[in-house]
Amino acid sequence: MAGKSRKNEVLNVALIGTQFMGRAHSNAWLNVTRFFNLKRPVSMHTACGLPVDKPEAFAAKWGWGQGVPNYKRDVVANPDIELVDIATPNHVHAEIAIAALEAGKHVSCEKPLAGTLADAKQMVEAAKKAKRRKQHTFVWFNYRRVPAIGLAHQLVTSGKLGRIYHVRAAYLQEWGGPDTPLVWRFDRKVAGSGAHGDLNAHIIDMARFITGDEVTEVVGSVEETFIKQRVIPEEYGAEIKGKAGRKGTKKRMGRSTVDDLVIFLARFKGGAVASFEASRLSTGNKNRNMIEINGEHGSIRFDFERMNELDYYDANAPAAVRGWTNIMCTDGTVHPYVANWWPDAHVIGYEHTFVNQASDIVNILASPSVKPVVPIADFADAYKTQCVLEAAIVSARERRPVKVREIT
Amino acid sequence: MAGKSRKNEVLNVALIGTQFMGRAHSNAWLNVTRFFNLKRPVSMHTACGLPVDKPEAFAAKWGWGQGVPNYKRDVVANPDIELVDIATPNHVHAEIAIAALEAGKHVSCEKPLAGTLADAKQMVEAAKKAKRRKQHTFVWFNYRRVPAIGLAHQLVTSGKLGRIYHVRAAYLQEWGGPDTPLVWRFDRKVAGSGAHGDLNAHIIDMARFITGDEVTEVVGSVEETFIKQRVIPEEYGAEIKGKAGRKGTKKRMGRSTVDDLVIFLARFKGGAVASFEASRLSTGNKNRNMIEINGEHGSIRFDFERMNELDYYDANAPAAVRGWTNIMCTDGTVHPYVANWWPDAHVIGYEHTFVNQASDIVNILASPSVKPVVPIADFADAYKTQCVLEAAIVSARERRPVKVREIT
Amino acid sequence: MAGKSRKNEVLNVALIGTQFMGRAHSNAWLNVTRFFNLKRPVSMHTACGLPVDKPEAFAAKWGWGQGVPNYKRDVVANPDIELVDIATPNHVHAEIAIAALEAGKHVSCEKPLAGTLADAKQMVEAAKKAKRRKQHTFVWFNYRRVPAIGLAHQLVTSGKLGRIYHVRAAYLQEWGGPDTPLVWRFDRKVAGSGAHGDLNAHIIDMARFITGDEVTEVVGSVEETFIKQRVIPEEYGAEIKGKAGRKGTKKRMGRSTVDDLVIFLARFKGGAVASFEASRLSTGNKNRNMIEINGEHGSIRFDFERMNELDYYDANAPAAVRGWTNIMCTDGTVHPYVANWWPDAHVIGYEHTFVNQASDIVNILASPSVKPVVPIADFADAYKTQCVLEAAIVSARERRPVKVREIT
Amino acid sequence: MAGKSRKNEVLNVALIGTQFMGRAHSNAWLNVTRFFNLKRPVSMHTACGLPVDKPEAFAAKWGWGQGVPNYKRDVVANPDIELVDIATPNHVHAEIAIAALEAGKHVSCEKPLAGTLADAKQMVEAAKKAKRRKQHTFVWFNYRRVPAIGLAHQLVTSGKLGRIYHVRAAYLQEWGGPDTPLVWRFDRKVAGSGAHGDLNAHIIDMARFITGDEVTEVVGSVEETFIKQRVIPEEYGAEIKGKAGRKGTKKRMGRSTVDDLVIFLARFKGGAVASFEASRLSTGNKNRNMIEINGEHGSIRFDFERMNELDYYDANAPAAVRGWTNIMCTDGTVHPYVANWWPDAHVIGYEHTFVNQASDIVNILASPSVKPVVPIADFADAYKTQCVLEAAIVSARERRPVKVREIT
Repeated sequence: MAGKSRKNEVLNVALIGTQFMGRAHSNAWLNVTRFFNLKRPVSMHTACGLPVDKPEAFAAKWGWGQGVPNYKRDVVANPDIELVDIATPNHVHAEIAIAALEAGKHVSCEKPLAGTLADAKQMVEAAKKAKRRKQHTFVWFNYRRVPAIGLAHQLVTSGKLGRIYHVRAAYLQEWGGPDTPLVWRFDRKVAGSGAHGDLNAHIIDMARFITGDEVTEVVGSVEETFIKQRVIPEEYGAEIKGKAGRKGTKKRMGRSTVDDLVIFLARFKGGAVASFEASRLSTGNKNRNMIEINGEHGSIRFDFERMNELDYYDANAPAAVRGWTNIMCTDGTVHPYVANWWPDAHVIGYEHTFVNQASDIVNILASPSVKPVVPIADFADAYKTQCVLEAAIVSARERRPVKVREIT
Repeated sequence: MAGKSRKNEVLNVALIGTQFMGRAHSNAWLNVTRFFNLKRPVSMHTACGLPVDKPEAFAAKWGWGQGVPNYKRDVVANPDIELVDIATPNHVHAEIAIAALEAGKHVSCEKPLAGTLADAKQMVEAAKKAKRRKQHTFVWFNYRRVPAIGLAHQLVTSGKLGRIYHVRAAYLQEWGGPDTPLVWRFDRKVAGSGAHGDLNAHIIDMARFITGDEVTEVVGSVEETFIKQRVIPEEYGAEIKGKAGRKGTKKRMGRSTVDDLVIFLARFKGGAVASFEASRLSTGNKNRNMIEINGEHGSIRFDFERMNELDYYDANAPAAVRGWTNIMCTDGTVHPYVANWWPDAHVIGYEHTFVNQASDIVNILASPSVKPVVPIADFADAYKTQCVLEAAIVSARERRPVKVREIT
Repeated sequence: MAGKSRKNEVLNVALIGTQFMGRAHSNAWLNVTRFFNLKRPVSMHTACGLPVDKPEAFAAKWGWGQGVPNYKRDVVANPDIELVDIATPNHVHAEIAIAALEAGKHVSCEKPLAGTLADAKQMVEAAKKAKRRKQHTFVWFNYRRVPAIGLAHQLVTSGKLGRIYHVRAAYLQEWGGPDTPLVWRFDRKVAGSGAHGDLNAHIIDMARFITGDEVTEVVGSVEETFIKQRVIPEEYGAEIKGKAGRKGTKKRMGRSTVDDLVIFLARFKGGAVASFEASRLSTGNKNRNMIEINGEHGSIRFDFERMNELDYYDANAPAAVRGWTNIMCTDGTVHPYVANWWPDAHVIGYEHTFVNQASDIVNILASPSVKPVVPIADFADAYKTQCVLEAAIVSARERRPVKVREIT
Repeated sequence: MAGKSRKNEVLNVALIGTQFMGRAHSNAWLNVTRFFNLKRPVSMHTACGLPVDKPEAFAAKWGWGQGVPNYKRDVVANPDIELVDIATPNHVHAEIAIAALEAGKHVSCEKPLAGTLADAKQMVEAAKKAKRRKQHTFVWFNYRRVPAIGLAHQLVTSGKLGRIYHVRAAYLQEWGGPDTPLVWRFDRKVAGSGAHGDLNAHIIDMARFITGDEVTEVVGSVEETFIKQRVIPEEYGAEIKGKAGRKGTKKRMGRSTVDDLVIFLARFKGGAVASFEASRLSTGNKNRNMIEINGEHGSIRFDFERMNELDYYDANAPAAVRGWTNIMCTDGTVHPYVANWWPDAHVIGYEHTFVNQASDIVNILASPSVKPVVPIADFADAYKTQCVLEAAIVSARERRPVKVREIT
C-alpha cells in the first residue's frame, strides 16, 4: 500500500495504548496539523485501548474518530487504517507490531523497541520483510527531535568537533526511592527492565544519533537493585504475592524484579570511549537526560531539564573569547523544527518532540523521496540500541567485557 | 446571561484576531479540553479575522466551527456566542471589547488592555457596567500562569519574604536592531508604543501580581528611540511615506514612532522601591523576562528563558546550607497547573501559560463560586498596569516624578 | 622625586590604615613581588595605624619593616618613603592624601576618593599640582583588575560591541538587615554614605572603565533608608546617643544616618542609557557586583560572585551557534594579569585584584614610559565617579534630573 | 622529636622542589602566618631545588631563609629542620620521604603519594615506623580544604544524605591535545601515569573523603592513549629518541608513554556504586574537578571551576520549595577555613586550599591533641587511594573486575 506519492490521500492513523504514552502520542497527532504544513492530510482515525482503559472516553477527549477495545479486530483488520502507532507497555510491542506489519500497515512504535531481545529480533525480521513491500517502521526516540539535540547531531556529524574522544551520557531520575510502591515498572515481566530500558535506551540512542557512530563493546557494567522490597499498592493486592511488610504496618511487601541503576563503560567504532549512567535513585535529578561529547576541535553538552539550550565549545575560536556558548535553540531561521512553533526564546517543552516526530512520519509517508528533518530510527536502527542494552546486562552479570557483535 | 451555575451548558467561544496571538489563543482553546478536567464543556465556535486573514482557512486549521470576516455581524450579534476572545492589535481592543460587553458577552482581551489610556478608560467603564449584569472580563497576562510565577506569588503573598525592599524587573529582547524593517510594531498608531506596552506591561503586571502590592509613583523614567529611521518593507511601500534610504540602495526609509527602550524607577505602596527595564535592543537577550524580589526574610528570582525554574532564597535556612534554591516547578503535587501536564521535569513551554489561563476562564464561567488557581486580571486590574505605563511615559517626557494617582 | 626611570632603586611603601582594607593592601604588597616580575624592587617599609590598632603587631604579622602610630610624623615626614598607600575610612582620605602629596609623595588611595565632594575636590587640586612635579596618584578601584573585567574593557573599547545602547549595573549585598547593629558604616560622618559610596562607587567606575564613556546626566534617583533605627553595639554605648530599644529588651537604639539603597537612571555621553542599583538589603546577594552592557554587535555580562568568568555575546557569530559564551578568563596567554598566577582554571579570588593593581603601580613608578596592563584611575579620574555619585544624591533629594556638569 | 606540645618553639620548614608545586607550597607557607592565628610560630627555613632550579633565587623570591641544592646534605641532615615538605615530581617522592622520616623529620608530601605502588608501599612502611616515634606524615590532597568540599564532607558524614547510592566523579582537563609537545608529564618514568595519577588521584581521594567510605572493587576500566606520538620539544632533543615528525616539518616525534584518559566503575564498601573519569582531552573543560553524590535523603554536587559554591539538594525540604540550593561557601561563621579570609562572597581561589592545609599541619605539630578542621590524609590514608588507582589499571589491562584487596 506504500511506495508512491500519496500527497492527496488522507493518512488514517490508529493509536494503540491509552495511558501516559498514549496521551503523548495523541497530543502529537492533534497538534501536528496545526503547527506544521504537512505533505499529506492526516486523520486521527481510531484509538484502541483495553476495556479497562475506556477507549471511547479517551478517543472523545483527544479527538480520535472512534475508541475501540480490540486491536486485532478493530485496528489490524481495518483496511482504512494505514499507520499503526504503538504506545503500549513494552511486553506487547512485538505482538502488535508484527501483526500490523503482516497486515500491510506502517508501524510507529514507542521505545524501547521491545522488552526482550528475542522480541526485538522478531520485530526486526518482520520489518525487513515489510520494507520490501514499501512499508515503513519508526521508533519514537523523541529526544532526537529536541531542536538542541538536532543541532548537536548537525554539528558533530558535520565534523565541527573533529575526532571524538569521549562521550559522557547520563539519564538520572529520582522517583524510585524506598517509598515508591511496587507499580508495574518494577515488574520485569511487564517492563523488561528498570532504569536500563527506560533511560539508558534513550541515551544510547542519543549518543549514536549525535555522533553517527556505533558502540562496539561494553567494557564494564554495574546493574543494581538498591530497593529490593517495595510496598504492594492496594489495587494490586490480590494479584501480587508478597510477604508481610515492616513491623507495625499492615502493608504487604513484594520484590522488585528490575534494576534501579545500570551504569556501564563502552567503546565506539570510531575510537571514542564512553560512560552511560541511568538511575531512578539520583535524588535531586528529576529528568536529567544529559550528554557531553568531547572532540579534538570542540565539545557539546546538553541537559534535558534545560531542553531549549545547547552548550557548544569551539576550540578554534580566538583564545580571548573562547568558552562554552549557551545557544538558545529557538531560532526559526536555523534550528530544526523551530520555525513551526513560536518566536525566539518563547520556549517549547517535552511534548513538542513528539509533534516534531509526527510531522516527519507523515511527510515520509507522503512520498518516498521525502527526508526527515533529522534522521529517524526504524526498527533496524532501534535494534542496535537494543543490542547495546543487552550487552550491558550481559557484562554486568558475567563480569566481563562484552562485544556488541556477540549479541546480535 | 451569567451569574448562575452553567456547568452543563456548552460555552461557545469566539476568537477575534487570527495572527500571532490568534494562534496562541486557538492553541489554548484546542488543548484546554484535553489536558484539564473543566467544569463546563467548551466549544470553539467561531474565529473571526479581517478578510485579508482568510478566517475560513484559519478556522479549519485550528478546529473552530466557522471562520467569519465581520466581528460585529458574525460575533457580537450572534446570540449563541457567550465569550468573545480578543487577540487583535491593541488599537482596536476598545472598540471590540465595548461592543461585545454591550451585547452581553463575557470578554477576554489580550494585553495590554489598550493602546491608549483613553481607550483603556472606556473599556473599564464598560466592564464596570457589565459586571453588574454578571458579565466577566479577563486580560491575558499569560505570565501569571507560568507555574514558577504562580509559586512566586504564593510565596510572596503568604509572607515568606517578609517586608519587601526591592523589586528588579526587566523584559529584554533583541530583535529591534537597525536591520529590522518598519513593521507595524514601530507604528505608534497601531501599536500604541514599542517595548513599553509590549514588554513593560508584562513586568508591571508580574510585579503587582507577585507582590500583591501597587505602584504609587514613578520617580524617574527614560524613553528612548535609538533607531529613528528604518527600511520600509516592500509590501508597505505604497502606504508609508518615507524618504530615500542609505546611499547606493533603493530602499525607502521611514520614521519609527515608538520607543525602543523604556526604563523607570518606581515606589510601591508597601514601601518597596523598584526598577523596570524594557528593551528591544538588549543584544543576546531573546525573551528575557526577569524579575527579582528581595525581602527581609528571603528573595525570589525568575527568568522566562528558563521558565520551568524559580530561584528562592530562604534567609531563615540554617547558615551552613543557606543559598539560592533552584526549584524545578514541575511537581504536580504542589505547583500550580502542573498536575494537568507531564511527569516531573518533563518541562512545559510558552504556550502552556495560555492553556492554563483558558482553564481558569472556563471554570469561572461555570459557576460564580469558582476561584481561579491564582488570581486573574480583569479590566479594572489591568487598568492599574495601564496607569503605571502612562505614568512612566509622562515622567520621561516631563522629566519629573509622577504619582500614579495623577493619571487615573 | 619622580619622572625619570628608577628601575634599580627600591620603592619604599608606607601603608596608612590597618583594618580590613589595610589587610587587603598588605596582602597585595606582600605577594606582588612573588607573583610578578616587577620593573622595580619594592619594600614594605612602614605600616601606620592609630594607637588602638596596634600597628606594631600588624606590621610584624604582614612583614612591614615597622609599625608606627603617627602618619604625619612617621610617614609623611619620612624622606625614605616614596609611596603613601591610604587604606583608612573615607573621611580622612583628603587630609592624609593632601599632606602626602604636599610632601612630594606618590599616593595610592582606597576608593571612593573621599567621603564628601568637597574633600574630593581638594584632593584633585592637590593631585593636579603634584602631577606637575611628576608625582602620581592612584585610586584602588580594584575591580578594574579582575581579569574578566579587563577583558570586558578590551572588548568594548576596541569596538566589538559596536554602538552601546544599554548599561545595567548593580552591586547587591545583604548584610544590612534589621539585626545588624549600628556600626561605623551607618554613621554618615565617618562613612560619607551607605551603599552609595561603598557600592555604587564601584559600579559607576566599572561602567566608565568598560565603556570608556562618561555619564552626563542622572535622570532619576531613589535614596532609601529602610532600617532607620539600629541597635547600638555595646562598645559604642557611651558614644552614641540612642533611645530605648524594642519592648522587653534593654538594647539601646540609634539612628542610621546613611542610605541602605540608592538606585538611579543615567545617560552616557555616547548615547547609552543606564541603570545603577546598590543595596545592602538584597537578601541572597552576598557580593553580587554585576554589570551587563548591550551594544549593536554584542553584549557582555559579569557577576563578581563568579569573578573568573565573563559572558560575551557576539551578534556576528553564525546564527546556528550564536549565544552567550561563558569565558573562563584564566588563560595566561591572553587574559590580563593571569600569566602571573596559576594554570588555566586554577581560579583566583578577591584579593588578587589588589595584587594586580600593586604590580601596575610599581611598574608605573619604575619609569614614566610604562603603561599599566589596563588603565588605572588617578584622582582626576576618580573624581568623575565622585561627581556621578553626587549627582545621584542631588537627583534623589531634589526629585529632578541632574546634569553631571552641574556638580563639578 | 614530636609528641609533646611545642607551642612556643618555631617550626622550621624545608621545601624540596621549586617548580609549579614548589610555588604553590611556598605561597602556603608565606601566607599562612598572615591569615591564620597558628598554634605555633613557623619559619620558612630552607628551599631546596636541583642546581638547574637556581634554589637561591627561588628562596629569595619567596622568602625562604636559604636556597640549597642538595636535599640529603642540606635538608635531611640539618637538625634544625623539623618538617620536610616535598613538592617534587612523583618518581622521587619515596626516596626523599623515606630519608626524611628516617632522619626523624615530619613529612608533608605532594599527591599522589608515589609514582608506583611499590614506592608507595615503602613510604607507608617508613611512615608506620616513624609514627611510633610520634612523627607525622601528611599528603597534600589540597581539594579537601576547599571550603565547599569541607562542607560536603560535613553534610555527608553527618548523615544528611542518608544511605549513599551513587557517586559520579570526573576530573576533566583539555590541555593534552595533539599539539601539546612531549613534556615530562607524558613520560611514564617520571610521571608514573598521565591523567590517572594526576587527576583520578584527586577525585578518588575526594570521594573517599566526602563519603567517609572506601572503594572495595573496580568493576570495569578503560585506559586510553589517544595521542600516541607527540612532538619532542627542542630542549629535550638530545635526550629523547624520536622518529621523524609529520611530512614537511623538521619536528622530531616521540612516543607518549602515559594515558590521556582513564575511566572506571567502582563499588564502595557501604554499597554505593561509582564512576570515575579523568581526561586531558575533554575539550572545553579546563579544570573541571566535579563530583556528585546521590543519597536517599539528598545529594551534593561540586565543580572546582566554581569552587566557592556547593550545590545541595535536601529531599526532606517542603515539596513546593525543594530544589538544588547553590550555597556560596563563604560564610565565616559556619564554613570551614573561611573566617580566616575575606567577607562573605569575596571569593577565594586555588592557592587558598594549600594555605588552609598548611594551617592544619602547623596546628597538629603544635600539640598532639589538636584536630585539623577537617580530616587530613597521612601516608596510610593516601595509600588507599593509590591502591584504587592501581586496581583501575589492573582492571583496564586484564579486562576484568579487580578487588582492591587484591592490590594491597
